[in-house]
Amino acid sequence: MYPDSNAAEIERIMSEAWTAFHGYRRISLAKRSEFMKTIATDLRQEAERLVPVAVQETNLPAQRLRGELARTIFQLESYAEACEKGDWMDIRIDTADPNKTPAKPDIRKMLVPLGPVVVFGASNFPFAYSTAGGDTACAFAAGCPVIVKAHPAHSGTSTLVADIISTASSKCRLPRGTFAHVYGKSPEVGHALVTNTHTKAVGFTGSFAGGKQLFDWANQRKEPIPVFSEMGSTNPVFLLPDKLRQDYKSVAKLYAGSITLGVGQFCTNPGIIVGIAGESLNEFMSALGAEIRKAVPATMLHPGIANSFWEKRSAAIHQTEVEVLAESVTLPLQNQGQPTIASVSAAAFMNNPILHQEVFGPYSIIVRCESLNEMLEVVRTFDGQLTATIMGSEKDMMENDDLVESIKNICGRFILNGVPTGVEVCLSMHHGGPFPATTDARFTSVGADGIKRFARPIAYQNWNDSLLPEELKNANPCHIWRTINNELTRNSIN
Amino acid sequence: MYPDSNAAEIERIMSEAWTAFHGYRRISLAKRSEFMKTIATDLRQEAERLVPVAVQETNLPAQRLRGELARTIFQLESYAEACEKGDWMDIRIDTADPNKTPAKPDIRKMLVPLGPVVVFGASNFPFAYSTAGGDTACAFAAGCPVIVKAHPAHSGTSTLVADIISTASSKCRLPRGTFAHVYGKSPEVGHALVTNTHTKAVGFTGSFAGGKQLFDWANQRKEPIPVFSEMGSTNPVFLLPDKLRQDYKSVAKLYAGSITLGVGQFCTNPGIIVGIAGESLNEFMSALGAEIRKAVPATMLHPGIANSFWEKRSAAIHQTEVEVLAESVTLPLQNQGQPTIASVSAAAFMNNPILHQEVFGPYSIIVRCESLNEMLEVVRTFDGQLTATIMGSEKDMMENDDLVESIKNICGRFILNGVPTGVEVCLSMHHGGPFPATTDARFTSVGADGIKRFARPIAYQNWNDSLLPEELKNANPCHIWRTINNELTRNSIN
Repeated sequence: MYPDSNAAEIERIMSEAWTAFHGYRRISLAKRSEFMKTIATDLRQEAERLVPVAVQETNLPAQRLRGELARTIFQLESYAEACEKGDWMDIRIDTADPNKTPAKPDIRKMLVPLGPVVVFGASNFPFAYSTAGGDTACAFAAGCPVIVKAHPAHSGTSTLVADIISTASSKCRLPRGTFAHVYGKSPEVGHALVTNTHTKAVGFTGSFAGGKQLFDWANQRKEPIPVFSEMGSTNPVFLLPDKLRQDYKSVAKLYAGSITLGVGQFCTNPGIIVGIAGESLNEFMSALGAEIRKAVPATMLHPGIANSFWEKRSAAIHQTEVEVLAESVTLPLQNQGQPTIASVSAAAFMNNPILHQEVFGPYSIIVRCESLNEMLEVVRTFDGQLTATIMGSEKDMMENDDLVESIKNICGRFILNGVPTGVEVCLSMHHGGPFPATTDARFTSVGADGIKRFARPIAYQNWNDSLLPEELKNANPCHIWRTINNELTRNSIN
Repeated sequence: MYPDSNAAEIERIMSEAWTAFHGYRRISLAKRSEFMKTIATDLRQEAERLVPVAVQETNLPAQRLRGELARTIFQLESYAEACEKGDWMDIRIDTADPNKTPAKPDIRKMLVPLGPVVVFGASNFPFAYSTAGGDTACAFAAGCPVIVKAHPAHSGTSTLVADIISTASSKCRLPRGTFAHVYGKSPEVGHALVTNTHTKAVGFTGSFAGGKQLFDWANQRKEPIPVFSEMGSTNPVFLLPDKLRQDYKSVAKLYAGSITLGVGQFCTNPGIIVGIAGESLNEFMSALGAEIRKAVPATMLHPGIANSFWEKRSAAIHQTEVEVLAESVTLPLQNQGQPTIASVSAAAFMNNPILHQEVFGPYSIIVRCESLNEMLEVVRTFDGQLTATIMGSEKDMMENDDLVESIKNICGRFILNGVPTGVEVCLSMHHGGPFPATTDARFTSVGADGIKRFARPIAYQNWNDSLLPEELKNANPCHIWRTINNELTRNSIN
């Protein structure tokens, strides 16, 4: 139904995107914002047409998808506002000083777009991390044309959303080629897109294998380009003893919900829970087990994801010393994920790479440490993570400074007494983390700071005020916060 | 005299750096700043011991080296101030909103250091881009231990500076391993440093071959790490017709100075000058030729650089249609560079990659276009550049919007009616640019924004105020500008 785009088509699309770039990057921040808001409005109007198609393609419940669409609209609107506000451009101005030897010239720096951005959406978020998702919104805000490769698992939804973006682009009279949509089940399409000479950056959300492949292709180009791949995570949770003793019941209930939310199909799903062996941990495991047994299996996004869940779950629970603590008592139907928790000693966990792998779905393993010292050793075996969570009392935190610091060092978001699932869309959000959670720990894919993935600084030296871009002019007509001679201000320059 | 560090030594040094990281990253911004200022003070005190060694190793004049040392001290002091001020941490806070569904947690984001940074200094700046140079200062400010590989061309200078840094580290009671210094003529040393598991980022200034090699090694690691390589540039200059007609004499004089400054040994040396064939350009070439003939050859940094200059100059001037316009009439002695200008038609230039290469030294080629349209075609053949310069009147600029936009798209710093040599150290400076000028156009190696190369965001979610880092606490005890609920402020949170 959606045949792969061929090489000639991709070449044509990328050439058009490159031409469009020369026009699109020159429109004002207000016009970029208007474009993004038009997409948002049209998505809102088309919700009742979009959601049923997405339900059919992803097996996700309509209510969840309506929520996700609302989030997508909020992303577009809030990044549009951030775009227009202009603070993301990191403007710095140093005015001339003719009395210095040699004379100091006037220098003014702002961010400008990189060029056409190729976006690969996620299977598990057909709206929020796909065609009109965060990467697309950030790239448009930065001033970059966007080429989306539809995710094969929801090409129909992607096509409808792409049509809405194309229509918005026409309504706003943007250059032809500012947005394009291609199809590709085979890796060749991804390869052609990433290695095309006109592609200047890539955004990806999905598996490690996929994201790392794009990263490698991009770095092997004659002209390497930045790739932001968000590749998932096991999101470890550390249960500290004082907190667990006081609250094992509520922690168990909270985590049963987080583990099974959306059939566990979130990159922030808590896949590994680390505690200290003893009475409290036993009580916690028993309470969590009771909750998990009550949880109901549900259909996963597509058969490939369900198969992968069962394979990885099976590999994990057959490792030495791993035992299944509990699984839902309702038998799963075909393509359903079965909520499962397992348990293993820290000693067995630490040196077993299979147990460090993400099992994408409603699965979590509890790692039993002999002591807080052993927990610190466990922390040091973790690769980079999107999130890490501590369940700890104030006393726990005060007494375990080294442990807290070590956990901090492996993650992008550090949660205290909460759950990692639920990624708030706001400027303070960091959805990123050290490799292999992402390919560049210095950027985020959620929140308006994500715009910076697709922009670069340029410094104007010795320009007449009349010739400078609006954002840099003395009068500050865009009313942007700017650092002038090392002081942040919205004032104009006299 | 300085044997290469061996593999065991490097392993030990990197392990120590990793251990030091756990301590160094936890000291306050004020302590980091004190450390950097101590290095600066000690460098100032030791100037009379440092400069003669550098003179001997680099053949650069004492006055130039004293100036460069002063610049190095200024970098350390001004980045120390920026470090302590804390604005570089990009703090964003969104306070909790329990009335939202689901409830919105409190989230607070700041930058934290990446880990041990390996720095490879430049041959042409024994102080400012070397052992205690910009990369080292930025990494210390970010909270990262630094391992410097001494440049083989000035290992003696590097050793003296390294001793000063080590002493400052002891004076400030920093963890052992916060700074280390290694030697390496062979590529194996660089390879061992970049691929060591404890290395978390790399800073490099030098040749394309060297910088690209480090970048490739870093990306081929199991855990890829960011590399900021600044790899030089030809820094094209575009002479627009109205300006040239009015000012060809002063432009020629200005550029004769810029081309020959420091025997042309700057990454911002103007290597390609593009004009429109005609009377004004002839006048300009003739005036520039007269200046270049008067210029005096001088000894280059080391025999390798002098050889490379003569080889690349020879390759360039023997290309089809290239003619030497002028060279200094004084005959060069051994290891000296001879100021030279050549000229070629745009048609011959555009398709000849050898003419696009940097000739590191006092050499520049003038590209003669038939028209402004052909100049636009020439712009499109350029790779990424650290700088691009336009010599243009207001009239020129108004009439050539597309040309100006196209030039902007290839460079990191965009100069109007000036010269690219001279890189001011200030926050608004951007010393970077699209590949192959650097390996990541999104970062700078000059100015306090360079700190961000070595830091990553972390978001604290739902933390008690008492447990948060000082920088994120409600009371804002560090008095940092923070974006709170989308508004920049220095206020505390009630």
